[in-house]
Amino acid sequence: MREEKLMDLEEKTLASRDIFQGRIIKVRVDQVLLPDGSESSREIVEHSGAVGIVAIDEENNLWMVRQYRKALERVLLEIPAGTLEENEEPLECARRELEEETGLQAAKWQKILSYHSAPGFCDEKLFLFMAQGLSPGESSLDRDEFLEVEKVPLKEAYEMIFSGEIIDGKSIIGIQYACRLLGC
Amino acid sequence: MREEKLMDLEEKTLASRDIFQGRIIKVRVDQVLLPDGSESSREIVEHSGAVGIVAIDEENNLWMVRQYRKALERVLLEIPAGTLEENEEPLECARRELEEETGLQAAKWQKILSYHSAPGFCDEKLFLFMAQGLSPGESSLDRDEFLEVEKVPLKEAYEMIFSGEIIDGKSIIGIQYACRLLGC
Repeated sequence: MREEKLMDLEEKTLASRDIFQGRIIKVRVDQVLLPDGSESSREIVEHSGAVGIVAIDEENNLWMVRQYRKALERVLLEIPAGTLEENEEPLECARRELEEETGLQAAKWQKILSYHSAPGFCDEKLFLFMAQGLSPGESSLDRDEFLEVEKVPLKEAYEMIFSGEIIDGKSIIGIQYACRLLGC
Repeated sequence: MREEKLMDLEEKTLASRDIFQGRIIKVRVDQVLLPDGSESSREIVEHSGAVGIVAIDEENNLWMVRQYRKALERVLLEIPAGTLEENEEPLECARRELEEETGLQAAKWQKILSYHSAPGFCDEKLFLFMAQGLSPGESSLDRDEFLEVEKVPLKEAYEMIFSGEIIDGKSIIGIQYACRLLGC
């Protein structure tokens, strides 16, 4: 076993260079001082954060959306989700996104957890919620958002994690949680 | 419920602009044609992919690492992980990273699943493995990598997901999987 020693792990910023400012992300490169006194660079993607919603009806169906993801050049089946707007509370964002994407409102909301999708290079924080007591609301998709709604029995959704049909982190975390809570 | 209609969800690329080429990520902006004929842009982060290892010993301890994450400006407690090198097989990478980061070798390897950390803007694919039958190997950290090894009882690790002590997606997915498989 390698020898462990307590050390200050912090990487101090020596310089920071802005690379890109987009609508969704910002990119910068930090020059850092490592614990041993040497230097390295860290490429950082900044993101304003997002929410994901595990919406489950009384028949234990998970409400999901099919959406084209340009980064992967394919359609993904995911839980409803969306990016936080400026000064928006995560729960408020979750209510908005659930209704925009699926047309559903929920009577019962519960925070599951928050997490970071890719802390090695990105600061994106995701807030996951469970929504129950579902009823029809009014749908109004974003101008540049096209998706199809689909309900999947929770047990089936769990199997789709391992068959490669559900492949995004937030859906996987949310489905694992719901399966443990509700059984599947 | 909003009216659903079958539609071609694909977003065709009209133009692509390279923004940044780093050591870990590339960034580009695609101009896309949406299903309704209008246009939008998509900011895309390209990443070569990574592995994460759920290494569990015979006492049901999960072997983890504490590491400074510049993107979050804090130390995170995570499962061992690392970026795929060029032409490296995920399992080969997992063996290498486990030994580099913890000094451990594993007799039994099992693929858990693969997933995408943030498909809304990034193509990073993560391959998760379970490693059992652990024994000391030889540790050799990357030149710019500083971390501390820590073993955590699996049940405790599960609780740390919800107490906010474990906050990265790959660790959360891996711990939930291990808890279901091994009980906790």
